[in-house]
Amino acid sequence: MDTNASLNTPADIRKLIRGGDYTGHTSGFAPGFVQANLVILPQKYAYDFLRFCQANPKSCPLLGQTEAGALGHPALAKDLDIRTDLPKYRVFEHGQLIYEPTQVLDIWRDDLVSFLIGCSFSFEEALLADGIEIRNISEHKNVPMYITNQACNGAGPFVGNQVVSMRPMKPKDAIRAIQICSRYPSVHGAPVHFGDPAAIGIKDINRPDFGEAVSIKAGEVPVFWACGVTPQVAISNARPDFCITHSPGHMLVLDIKNTSLATF
Amino acid sequence: MDTNASLNTPADIRKLIRGGDYTGHTSGFAPGFVQANLVILPQKYAYDFLRFCQANPKSCPLLGQTEAGALGHPALAKDLDIRTDLPKYRVFEHGQLIYEPTQVLDIWRDDLVSFLIGCSFSFEEALLADGIEIRNISEHKNVPMYITNQACNGAGPFVGNQVVSMRPMKPKDAIRAIQICSRYPSVHGAPVHFGDPAAIGIKDINRPDFGEAVSIKAGEVPVFWACGVTPQVAISNARPDFCITHSPGHMLVLDIKNTSLATF
Repeated sequence: MDTNASLNTPADIRKLIRGGDYTGHTSGFAPGFVQANLVILPQKYAYDFLRFCQANPKSCPLLGQTEAGALGHPALAKDLDIRTDLPKYRVFEHGQLIYEPTQVLDIWRDDLVSFLIGCSFSFEEALLADGIEIRNISEHKNVPMYITNQACNGAGPFVGNQVVSMRPMKPKDAIRAIQICSRYPSVHGAPVHFGDPAAIGIKDINRPDFGEAVSIKAGEVPVFWACGVTPQVAISNARPDFCITHSPGHMLVLDIKNTSLATF
Repeated sequence: MDTNASLNTPADIRKLIRGGDYTGHTSGFAPGFVQANLVILPQKYAYDFLRFCQANPKSCPLLGQTEAGALGHPALAKDLDIRTDLPKYRVFEHGQLIYEPTQVLDIWRDDLVSFLIGCSFSFEEALLADGIEIRNISEHKNVPMYITNQACNGAGPFVGNQVVSMRPMKPKDAIRAIQICSRYPSVHGAPVHFGDPAAIGIKDINRPDFGEAVSIKAGEVPVFWACGVTPQVAISNARPDFCITHSPGHMLVLDIKNTSLATF
Protein backbone atom coordinates (compact mmCIF):
# COMPACT_ATOMS: atom_id res chain seq x y z
CA MET A 1 0.00 0.00 0.00
CA ASP A 2 2.73 2.36 1.02
CA THR A 3 4.62 1.34 -2.12
CA ASN A 4 1.73 2.31 -4.40
CA ALA A 5 1.22 5.57 -2.60
CA SER A 6 4.89 6.49 -2.83
CA LEU A 7 4.80 5.80 -6.58
CA ASN A 8 2.72 8.91 -6.94
CA THR A 9 5.79 11.04 -6.29
CA PRO A 10 7.96 11.79 -9.31
CA ALA A 11 11.19 10.92 -7.47
CA ASP A 12 9.93 7.46 -6.56
CA ILE A 13 8.74 6.83 -10.12
CA ARG A 14 12.13 7.81 -11.51
CA LYS A 15 13.82 5.55 -8.93
CA LEU A 16 11.62 2.61 -9.93
CA ILE A 17 12.36 3.19 -13.60
CA ARG A 18 16.08 3.70 -12.95
CA GLY A 19 16.21 0.29 -11.25
CA GLY A 20 14.82 -1.33 -14.41
CA ASP A 21 11.61 -2.38 -12.70
CA TYR A 22 9.29 -0.50 -15.05
CA THR A 23 9.60 -0.07 -18.80
CA GLY A 24 6.03 0.88 -19.80
CA HIS A 25 4.11 4.06 -20.60
CA THR A 26 3.98 6.86 -18.06
CA SER A 27 0.48 8.08 -18.90
CA GLY A 28 -1.44 8.63 -15.66
CA PHE A 29 1.70 8.47 -13.49
CA ALA A 30 2.22 11.10 -10.80
CA PRO A 31 -1.01 13.01 -11.35
CA GLY A 32 -0.49 16.75 -11.18
CA PHE A 33 3.18 16.60 -12.16
CA VAL A 34 4.70 17.61 -15.48
CA GLN A 35 5.99 14.95 -17.88
CA ALA A 36 8.45 15.88 -20.61
CA ASN A 37 9.48 14.89 -24.09
CA LEU A 38 13.24 14.31 -24.36
CA VAL A 39 15.64 15.08 -27.21
CA ILE A 40 19.36 14.41 -26.73
CA LEU A 41 21.79 15.64 -29.39
CA PRO A 42 25.56 16.08 -29.73
CA GLN A 43 26.57 19.61 -28.83
CA LYS A 44 27.44 20.46 -32.41
CA TYR A 45 23.71 20.38 -33.22
CA ALA A 46 22.60 22.02 -29.99
CA TYR A 47 22.56 25.65 -31.07
CA ASP A 48 20.56 24.95 -34.23
CA PHE A 49 18.11 22.72 -32.38
CA LEU A 50 17.63 25.29 -29.64
CA ARG A 51 16.98 27.90 -32.33
CA PHE A 52 14.45 25.51 -33.88
CA CYS A 53 12.63 25.19 -30.55
CA GLN A 54 12.67 28.93 -29.94
CA ALA A 55 11.33 29.60 -33.44
CA ASN A 56 8.53 27.04 -33.10
CA PRO A 57 7.42 27.44 -29.50
CA LYS A 58 3.97 25.90 -29.92
CA SER A 59 5.40 22.64 -31.29
CA CYS A 60 8.60 22.62 -29.23
CA PRO A 61 7.88 24.39 -25.93
CA LEU A 62 11.14 24.11 -24.02
CA LEU A 63 10.88 23.38 -20.32
CA GLY A 64 14.66 23.32 -20.00
CA GLN A 65 17.94 22.18 -21.47
CA THR A 66 21.29 21.04 -20.09
CA GLU A 67 24.95 21.80 -20.57
CA ALA A 68 26.94 19.26 -22.56
CA GLY A 69 27.43 16.03 -20.62
CA ALA A 70 25.15 17.02 -17.75
CA LEU A 71 23.03 14.18 -16.42
CA GLY A 72 20.54 16.25 -14.49
CA HIS A 73 18.45 19.39 -14.34
CA PRO A 74 18.00 20.24 -10.64
CA ALA A 75 15.32 22.88 -11.26
CA LEU A 76 13.07 20.33 -12.95
CA ALA A 77 13.95 17.04 -11.22
CA LYS A 78 16.09 16.32 -8.15
CA ASP A 79 18.79 13.66 -8.54
CA LEU A 80 17.82 13.10 -12.17
CA ASP A 81 19.91 10.74 -14.26
CA ILE A 82 18.82 11.45 -17.81
CA ARG A 83 20.46 8.18 -18.95
CA THR A 84 18.24 5.89 -16.88
CA ASP A 85 15.16 7.70 -15.62
CA LEU A 86 12.89 7.22 -18.65
CA PRO A 87 11.30 3.79 -19.19
CA LYS A 88 12.27 3.58 -22.86
CA TYR A 89 14.49 5.53 -25.24
CA ARG A 90 14.95 5.66 -28.99
CA VAL A 91 18.41 5.83 -30.50
CA PHE A 92 18.83 7.31 -33.99
CA GLU A 93 21.86 7.37 -36.30
CA HIS A 94 21.71 9.63 -39.33
CA GLY A 95 17.97 9.99 -38.82
CA GLN A 96 17.30 6.24 -38.72
CA LEU A 97 15.83 4.55 -35.66
CA ILE A 98 18.38 1.93 -34.53
CA TYR A 99 16.89 0.49 -31.36
CA GLU A 100 14.81 1.19 -28.25
CA PRO A 101 16.80 0.57 -25.08
CA THR A 102 15.52 1.02 -21.52
CA GLN A 103 18.66 2.98 -20.54
CA VAL A 104 21.47 4.69 -22.44
CA LEU A 105 24.33 4.34 -19.93
CA ASP A 106 26.54 2.44 -22.35
CA ILE A 107 26.19 4.93 -25.22
CA TRP A 108 26.36 8.14 -23.18
CA ARG A 109 28.88 10.73 -24.32
CA ASP A 110 30.17 13.88 -22.68
CA ASP A 111 29.20 16.01 -25.69
CA LEU A 112 25.49 15.22 -25.38
CA VAL A 113 22.98 17.97 -24.62
CA SER A 114 19.44 17.22 -23.37
CA PHE A 115 16.31 19.17 -24.27
CA LEU A 116 13.16 18.74 -22.16
CA ILE A 117 10.04 19.70 -24.07
CA GLY A 118 6.49 20.16 -22.76
CA CYS A 119 3.98 17.37 -23.35
CA SER A 120 0.23 17.24 -23.96
CA PHE A 121 -0.31 15.16 -20.79
CA SER A 122 -0.18 18.45 -18.85
CA PHE A 123 -2.95 20.20 -20.75
CA GLU A 124 -5.03 17.03 -21.02
CA GLU A 125 -5.00 16.90 -17.23
CA ALA A 126 -6.17 20.52 -17.04
CA LEU A 127 -8.98 19.79 -19.51
CA LEU A 128 -10.09 16.66 -17.68
CA ALA A 129 -10.11 18.60 -14.42
CA ASP A 130 -12.57 20.99 -16.06
CA GLY A 131 -14.84 18.10 -17.05
CA ILE A 132 -13.92 18.05 -20.74
CA GLU A 133 -13.76 14.57 -22.27
CA ILE A 134 -10.48 13.67 -23.98
CA ARG A 135 -11.46 11.13 -26.61
CA ASN A 136 -8.07 9.40 -26.88
CA ILE A 137 -8.15 8.83 -23.12
CA SER A 138 -11.76 7.61 -22.98
CA GLU A 139 -11.10 5.29 -25.95
CA HIS A 140 -7.73 4.13 -24.51
CA LYS A 141 -5.84 5.07 -27.65
CA ASN A 142 -2.69 6.97 -28.50
CA VAL A 143 -3.75 10.44 -29.57
CA PRO A 144 -4.02 10.71 -33.39
CA MET A 145 -1.27 12.86 -34.91
CA TYR A 146 -0.96 14.26 -38.41
CA ILE A 147 1.83 15.83 -40.45
CA THR A 148 0.37 19.10 -41.74
CA ASN A 149 1.31 21.24 -44.74
CA GLN A 150 2.33 24.05 -42.38
CA ALA A 151 6.09 24.58 -42.57
CA CYS A 152 7.95 25.14 -39.31
CA ASN A 153 10.45 27.95 -39.07
CA GLY A 154 13.68 26.20 -40.04
CA ALA A 155 16.98 26.48 -38.13
CA GLY A 156 20.09 25.07 -39.78
CA PRO A 157 19.39 21.47 -40.74
CA PHE A 158 16.23 21.33 -38.65
CA VAL A 159 13.32 21.83 -41.04
CA GLY A 160 9.95 20.21 -41.60
CA ASN A 161 6.22 20.60 -41.34
CA GLN A 162 4.31 20.99 -38.12
CA VAL A 163 2.80 17.86 -36.60
CA VAL A 164 -0.52 18.26 -34.81
CA SER A 165 -2.46 16.11 -32.39
CA MET A 166 -6.26 16.03 -32.65
CA ARG A 167 -8.99 15.81 -30.04
CA PRO A 168 -12.65 16.00 -31.18
CA MET A 169 -14.93 18.24 -29.11
CA LYS A 170 -18.24 20.05 -29.21
CA PRO A 171 -17.66 23.74 -30.08
CA LYS A 172 -18.60 24.77 -26.54
CA ASP A 173 -15.92 22.50 -25.09
CA ALA A 174 -13.44 23.60 -27.75
CA ILE A 175 -13.92 27.23 -26.70
CA ARG A 176 -13.31 26.27 -23.07
CA ALA A 177 -10.28 24.17 -24.11
CA ILE A 178 -8.82 27.18 -25.94
CA GLN A 179 -9.22 29.23 -22.76
CA ILE A 180 -7.65 26.61 -20.52
CA CYS A 181 -4.78 25.69 -22.84
CA SER A 182 -3.93 29.37 -23.41
CA ARG A 183 -2.77 29.40 -19.79
CA TYR A 184 -0.16 26.75 -20.60
CA PRO A 185 2.12 27.99 -23.40
CA SER A 186 4.93 25.70 -22.22
CA VAL A 187 2.86 22.61 -22.96
CA HIS A 188 1.78 23.53 -26.53
CA GLY A 189 -0.67 26.26 -25.50
CA ALA A 190 -3.89 26.96 -27.38
CA PRO A 191 -4.93 24.84 -30.37
CA VAL A 192 -3.61 25.92 -33.76
CA HIS A 193 -6.68 24.94 -35.80
CA PHE A 194 -10.16 23.48 -35.58
CA GLY A 195 -12.63 22.22 -38.15
CA ASP A 196 -11.73 21.40 -41.73
CA PRO A 197 -8.68 19.07 -41.69
CA ALA A 198 -7.89 19.88 -45.36
CA ALA A 199 -7.23 23.52 -44.43
CA ILE A 200 -3.94 22.40 -42.85
CA GLY A 201 -3.20 19.66 -45.37
CA ILE A 202 -4.68 16.64 -43.61
CA LYS A 203 -6.14 14.40 -46.29
CA ASP A 204 -7.92 11.77 -44.17
CA ILE A 205 -8.75 12.42 -40.52
CA ASN A 206 -9.28 8.68 -40.06
CA ARG A 207 -5.71 7.85 -41.09
CA PRO A 208 -3.33 9.65 -38.73
CA ASP A 209 0.40 9.64 -39.46
CA PHE A 210 1.14 8.67 -35.85
CA GLY A 211 -1.03 7.29 -33.05
CA GLU A 212 -4.51 5.94 -33.64
CA ALA A 213 -7.75 7.33 -35.08
CA VAL A 214 -10.45 8.23 -32.54
CA SER A 215 -14.18 8.54 -33.16
CA ILE A 216 -15.63 11.95 -33.98
CA LYS A 217 -19.26 12.17 -32.92
CA ALA A 218 -22.12 14.20 -34.43
CA GLY A 219 -21.86 17.85 -33.47
CA GLU A 220 -18.14 17.63 -32.74
CA VAL A 221 -15.30 19.30 -34.60
CA PRO A 222 -11.68 18.14 -34.70
CA VAL A 223 -9.46 20.44 -32.65
CA PHE A 224 -5.75 20.46 -33.46
CA TRP A 225 -2.81 21.22 -31.16
CA ALA A 226 0.84 21.67 -32.11
CA CYS A 227 2.52 18.40 -31.20
CA GLY A 228 5.81 17.37 -29.60
CA VAL A 229 6.40 14.92 -32.43
CA THR A 230 7.22 17.95 -34.62
CA PRO A 231 10.88 18.02 -33.47
CA GLN A 232 11.21 14.31 -34.25
CA VAL A 233 10.18 15.03 -37.84
CA ALA A 234 12.71 17.88 -37.98
CA ILE A 235 15.38 15.56 -36.58
CA SER A 236 14.61 12.87 -39.13
CA ASN A 237 15.07 15.55 -41.80
CA ALA A 238 18.29 16.86 -40.24
CA ARG A 239 19.76 13.35 -39.96
CA PRO A 240 22.19 14.10 -37.10
CA ASP A 241 24.81 11.35 -36.85
CA PHE A 242 23.58 10.57 -33.34
CA CYS A 243 20.41 11.34 -31.41
CA ILE A 244 18.47 9.93 -28.47
CA THR A 245 14.81 10.65 -27.73
CA HIS A 246 12.22 9.22 -25.38
CA SER A 247 10.06 6.48 -26.88
CA PRO A 248 6.54 7.85 -27.47
CA GLY A 249 4.47 7.70 -24.28
CA HIS A 250 7.54 6.83 -22.20
CA MET A 251 8.13 10.27 -20.74
CA LEU A 252 10.37 11.85 -18.16
CA VAL A 253 8.37 12.54 -14.98
CA LEU A 254 9.46 15.87 -13.47
CA ASP A 255 9.15 17.31 -9.96
CA ILE A 256 7.29 20.45 -11.04
CA LYS A 257 3.52 20.71 -10.93
CA ASN A 258 1.37 21.18 -14.02
CA THR A 259 -0.30 24.13 -12.31
CA SER A 260 3.10 25.82 -11.92
CA LEU A 261 3.19 26.19 -15.71
CA ALA A 262 0.05 28.35 -15.81
CA THR A 263 0.87 31.84 -16.99
CA PHE A 264 -2.22 33.40 -15.46
CA MET B 1 -9.54 71.20 -35.49
CA ASP B 2 -9.54 71.56 -31.73
CA THR B 3 -13.26 70.82 -31.73
CA ASN B 4 -12.78 67.51 -33.53
CA ALA B 5 -9.92 66.55 -31.26
CA SER B 6 -11.89 67.32 -28.12
CA LEU B 7 -14.72 65.11 -29.39
CA ASN B 8 -12.48 62.17 -28.75
CA THR B 9 -13.04 62.55 -25.02
CA PRO B 10 -16.15 60.88 -23.63
CA ALA B 11 -17.16 63.95 -21.59
CA ASP B 12 -17.13 66.17 -24.69
CA ILE B 13 -19.13 63.64 -26.67
CA ARG B 14 -21.75 63.42 -23.94
CA LYS B 15 -21.86 67.22 -23.79
CA LEU B 16 -22.40 67.45 -27.55
CA ILE B 17 -25.17 64.85 -27.40
CA ARG B 18 -26.77 66.47 -24.35
CA GLY B 19 -27.04 69.73 -26.25
CA GLY B 20 -29.02 67.99 -28.98
CA ASP B 21 -26.30 68.55 -31.57
CA TYR B 22 -25.78 64.89 -32.38
CA THR B 23 -28.41 62.14 -32.65
CA GLY B 24 -26.56 59.49 -34.67
CA HIS B 25 -24.70 56.23 -33.99
CA THR B 26 -21.74 56.25 -31.60
CA SER B 27 -19.72 53.54 -33.38
CA GLY B 28 -16.11 54.70 -33.64
CA PHE B 29 -16.59 57.53 -31.12
CA ALA B 30 -13.98 58.01 -28.38
CA PRO B 31 -11.67 55.19 -29.43
CA GLY B 32 -10.36 53.27 -26.44
CA PHE B 33 -13.32 54.11 -24.21
CA VAL B 34 -16.14 51.81 -23.17
CA GLN B 35 -19.62 52.28 -24.59
CA ALA B 36 -22.63 50.80 -22.84
CA ASN B 37 -26.06 49.39 -23.52
CA LEU B 38 -28.73 51.02 -21.38
CA VAL B 39 -31.85 49.55 -19.78
CA ILE B 40 -34.04 51.76 -17.56
CA LEU B 41 -36.85 50.13 -15.59
CA PRO B 42 -39.19 51.13 -12.76
CA GLN B 43 -37.78 50.01 -9.42
CA LYS B 44 -40.46 47.36 -8.98
CA TYR B 45 -38.79 45.38 -11.79
CA ALA B 46 -35.24 46.16 -10.75
CA TYR B 47 -34.51 43.20 -8.51
CA ASP B 48 -35.78 40.66 -11.03
CA PHE B 49 -33.91 42.32 -13.88
CA LEU B 50 -30.70 42.46 -11.85
CA ARG B 51 -31.14 38.76 -11.07
CA PHE B 52 -31.63 38.14 -14.80
CA CYS B 53 -28.34 39.92 -15.58
CA GLN B 54 -26.47 38.08 -12.83
CA ALA B 55 -27.82 34.74 -14.03
CA ASN B 56 -26.91 35.43 -17.69
CA PRO B 57 -23.59 37.24 -17.41
CA LYS B 58 -22.42 36.52 -20.95
CA SER B 59 -25.51 38.11 -22.51
CA CYS B 60 -26.02 40.82 -19.88
CA PRO B 61 -22.61 41.73 -18.47
CA LEU B 62 -23.35 44.51 -16.00
CA LEU B 63 -20.93 47.41 -15.91
CA GLY B 64 -23.01 49.16 -13.27
CA GLN B 65 -26.47 50.12 -12.09
CA THR B 66 -27.97 53.08 -10.27
CA GLU B 67 -30.21 53.74 -7.32
CA ALA B 68 -33.81 54.71 -8.11
CA GLY B 69 -34.03 58.18 -9.57
CA ALA B 70 -30.28 58.65 -9.87
CA LEU B 71 -29.21 60.47 -13.03
CA GLY B 72 -25.54 59.58 -12.93
CA HIS B 73 -22.95 56.94 -12.16
CA PRO B 74 -19.78 58.80 -11.10
CA ALA B 75 -17.53 55.72 -11.27
CA LEU B 76 -18.34 55.21 -14.94
CA ALA B 77 -18.98 58.74 -16.27
CA LYS B 78 -18.44 62.13 -14.62
CA ASP B 79 -21.41 64.53 -14.66
CA LEU B 80 -23.54 62.00 -16.48
CA ASP B 81 -27.18 62.81 -17.10
CA ILE B 82 -28.71 59.50 -18.10
CA ARG B 83 -31.78 61.34 -19.47
CA THR B 84 -29.93 63.28 -22.14
CA ASP B 85 -26.47 61.83 -22.77
CA LEU B 86 -27.38 59.16 -25.30
CA PRO B 87 -28.16 60.22 -28.89
CA LYS B 88 -31.34 58.18 -29.14
CA TYR B 89 -33.58 56.25 -26.75
CA ARG B 90 -36.38 53.76 -27.13
CA VAL B 91 -39.46 53.99 -24.94
CA PHE B 92 -41.54 50.85 -24.36
CA GLU B 93 -44.94 50.42 -22.71
CA HIS B 94 -46.05 46.89 -21.88
CA GLY B 95 -43.28 45.53 -24.12
CA GLN B 96 -44.31 47.62 -27.14
CA LEU B 97 -41.98 50.18 -28.69
CA ILE B 98 -43.77 53.54 -28.49
CA TYR B 99 -41.25 56.04 -29.86
CA GLU B 100 -37.57 56.91 -30.16
CA PRO B 101 -36.81 60.27 -28.54
CA THR B 102 -33.41 61.94 -28.35
CA GLN B 103 -33.86 62.67 -24.65
CA VAL B 104 -36.18 61.43 -21.90
CA LEU B 105 -36.32 64.50 -19.65
CA ASP B 106 -40.08 64.85 -19.93
CA ILE B 107 -40.87 61.24 -19.08
CA TRP B 108 -38.31 60.79 -16.30
CA ARG B 109 -39.57 59.42 -13.00
CA ASP B 110 -37.97 59.13 -9.60
CA ASP B 111 -38.62 55.40 -9.44
CA LEU B 112 -36.47 54.63 -12.48
CA VAL B 113 -33.34 52.50 -12.18
CA SER B 114 -30.65 52.40 -14.88
CA PHE B 115 -28.61 49.37 -15.88
CA LEU B 116 -25.42 49.84 -17.91
CA ILE B 117 -24.47 46.71 -19.82
CA GLY B 118 -21.24 45.94 -21.69
CA CYS B 119 -21.24 46.22 -25.48
CA SER B 120 -19.45 44.41 -28.29
CA PHE B 121 -17.75 47.63 -29.44
CA SER B 122 -15.19 47.03 -26.67
CA PHE B 123 -14.13 43.56 -27.77
CA GLU B 124 -14.31 44.47 -31.45
CA GLU B 125 -11.75 47.18 -30.73
CA ALA B 126 -9.49 44.65 -28.99
CA LEU B 127 -9.78 42.26 -31.96
CA LEU B 128 -9.09 45.00 -34.51
CA ALA B 129 -6.05 46.08 -32.50
CA ASP B 130 -4.75 42.53 -32.89
CA GLY B 131 -5.21 42.67 -36.65
CA ILE B 132 -8.34 40.53 -36.83
CA GLU B 133 -10.87 41.62 -39.44
CA ILE B 134 -14.39 42.28 -38.17
CA ARG B 135 -16.62 41.60 -41.15
CA ASN B 136 -19.54 43.81 -40.06
CA ILE B 137 -17.12 46.72 -39.74
CA SER B 138 -15.32 46.11 -43.03
CA GLU B 139 -18.68 45.72 -44.81
CA HIS B 140 -20.18 48.74 -42.98
CA LYS B 141 -23.13 46.76 -41.68
CA ASN B 142 -24.86 46.28 -38.38
CA VAL B 143 -23.60 43.02 -36.93
CA PRO B 144 -25.98 40.11 -37.72
CA MET B 145 -27.83 38.86 -34.65
CA TYR B 146 -29.90 35.72 -34.21
CA ILE B 147 -32.37 34.46 -31.61
CA THR B 148 -31.09 31.00 -30.63
CA ASN B 149 -32.89 28.02 -29.13
CA GLN B 150 -30.75 28.37 -25.97
CA ALA B 151 -32.95 29.41 -23.04
CA CYS B 152 -31.60 32.05 -20.70
CA ASN B 153 -31.83 31.51 -16.97
CA GLY B 154 -35.13 33.18 -16.16
CA ALA B 155 -35.70 35.61 -13.29
CA GLY B 156 -39.27 36.56 -12.45
CA PRO B 157 -40.96 37.80 -15.62
CA PHE B 158 -37.64 38.09 -17.47
CA VAL B 159 -37.34 34.98 -19.65
CA GLY B 160 -36.34 34.26 -23.21
CA ASN B 161 -33.77 32.71 -25.47
CA GLN B 162 -30.21 33.94 -25.83
CA VAL B 163 -29.51 36.29 -28.73
CA VAL B 164 -26.08 35.97 -30.37
CA SER B 165 -24.09 38.17 -32.70
CA MET B 166 -22.00 36.53 -35.44
CA ARG B 167 -18.63 37.38 -36.93
CA PRO B 168 -17.13 35.04 -39.54
CA MET B 169 -13.44 34.20 -39.14
CA LYS B 170 -10.78 31.73 -40.18
CA PRO B 171 -10.28 29.15 -37.41
CA LYS B 172 -6.86 30.59 -36.61
CA ASP B 173 -8.37 34.04 -36.03
CA ALA B 174 -11.27 32.51 -34.11
CA ILE B 175 -8.81 30.85 -31.71
CA ARG B 176 -7.07 34.20 -31.20
CA ALA B 177 -10.44 35.93 -30.77
CA ILE B 178 -11.40 33.43 -28.06
CA GLN B 179 -8.15 34.22 -26.26
CA ILE B 180 -8.60 37.98 -26.53
CA CYS B 181 -12.31 38.07 -25.66
CA SER B 182 -11.74 35.79 -22.65
CA ARG B 183 -9.93 38.74 -21.08
CA TYR B 184 -13.13 40.80 -21.27
CA PRO B 185 -15.95 39.02 -19.43
CA SER B 186 -17.74 42.34 -18.82
CA VAL B 187 -18.23 42.88 -22.56
CA HIS B 188 -19.68 39.43 -23.40
CA GLY B 189 -16.40 37.52 -22.99
CA ALA B 190 -15.47 34.52 -25.12
CA PRO B 191 -17.74 33.34 -27.92
CA VAL B 192 -20.47 30.86 -26.96
CA HIS B 193 -20.40 28.82 -30.18
CA PHE B 194 -18.73 28.46 -33.55
CA GLY B 195 -19.48 26.47 -36.67
CA ASP B 196 -22.85 24.83 -37.36
CA PRO B 197 -25.60 27.46 -36.86
CA ALA B 198 -28.27 24.76 -36.53
CA ALA B 199 -26.59 23.47 -33.36
CA ILE B 200 -27.93 26.55 -31.53
CA GLY B 201 -31.20 26.75 -33.45
CA ILE B 202 -30.27 29.20 -36.20
CA LYS B 203 -32.14 28.12 -39.32
CA ASP B 204 -30.64 30.47 -41.91
CA ILE B 205 -27.37 32.27 -41.29
CA ASN B 206 -28.20 34.64 -44.15
CA ARG B 207 -31.42 35.82 -42.47
CA PRO B 208 -30.51 37.33 -39.10
CA ASP B 209 -33.27 38.31 -36.67
CA PHE B 210 -31.61 41.70 -36.09
CA GLY B 211 -28.89 43.59 -37.95
CA GLU B 212 -27.73 42.63 -41.43
CA ALA B 213 -26.22 39.51 -42.98
CA VAL B 214 -22.48 39.64 -43.70
CA SER B 215 -20.52 37.55 -46.17
CA ILE B 216 -18.86 34.35 -44.99
CA LYS B 217 -15.83 33.52 -47.11
CA ALA B 218 -14.36 30.12 -47.99
CA GLY B 219 -12.40 28.68 -45.09
CA GLU B 220 -14.24 30.79 -42.53
CA VAL B 221 -16.59 29.62 -39.80
CA PRO B 222 -19.31 31.69 -38.14
CA VAL B 223 -18.32 32.60 -34.57
CA PHE B 224 -21.13 33.50 -32.16
CA TRP B 225 -21.01 35.80 -29.13
CA ALA B 226 -23.70 36.32 -26.51
CA CYS B 227 -25.38 39.59 -27.43
CA GLY B 228 -26.66 42.61 -25.54
CA VAL B 229 -29.95 42.36 -27.42
CA THR B 230 -30.76 39.36 -25.21
CA PRO B 231 -32.14 41.56 -22.38
CA GLN B 232 -34.35 43.41 -24.89
CA VAL B 233 -35.94 40.07 -25.84
CA ALA B 234 -36.42 39.24 -22.16
CA ILE B 235 -37.98 42.69 -21.61
CA SER B 236 -40.35 42.25 -24.53
CA ASN B 237 -41.41 38.95 -22.93
CA ALA B 238 -41.76 40.52 -19.46
CA ARG B 239 -43.85 43.43 -20.80
CA PRO B 240 -43.05 45.89 -18.00
CA ASP B 241 -45.52 48.77 -18.03
CA PHE B 242 -42.67 51.19 -18.69
CA CYS B 243 -39.13 50.80 -19.96
CA ILE B 244 -36.49 52.93 -21.65
CA THR B 245 -33.47 51.55 -23.52
CA HIS B 246 -30.85 53.02 -25.80
CA SER B 247 -31.65 52.80 -29.50
CA PRO B 248 -29.39 50.15 -31.12
CA GLY B 249 -26.01 51.64 -31.98
CA HIS B 250 -26.77 54.82 -30.02
CA MET B 251 -24.76 53.96 -26.94
CA LEU B 252 -23.69 55.69 -23.76
CA VAL B 253 -20.02 56.68 -24.01
CA LEU B 254 -18.30 56.13 -20.64
CA ASP B 255 -15.12 57.55 -19.13
CA ILE B 256 -13.50 54.18 -18.47
CA LYS B 257 -11.04 52.59 -20.87
CA ASN B 258 -11.70 49.34 -22.70
CA THR B 259 -8.34 48.07 -21.47
CA SER B 260 -9.44 48.67 -17.87
CA LEU B 261 -11.98 45.87 -18.34
CA ALA B 262 -9.31 43.25 -19.05
CA THR B 263 -9.23 40.65 -16.29
CA PHE B 264 -5.68 39.54 -17.06
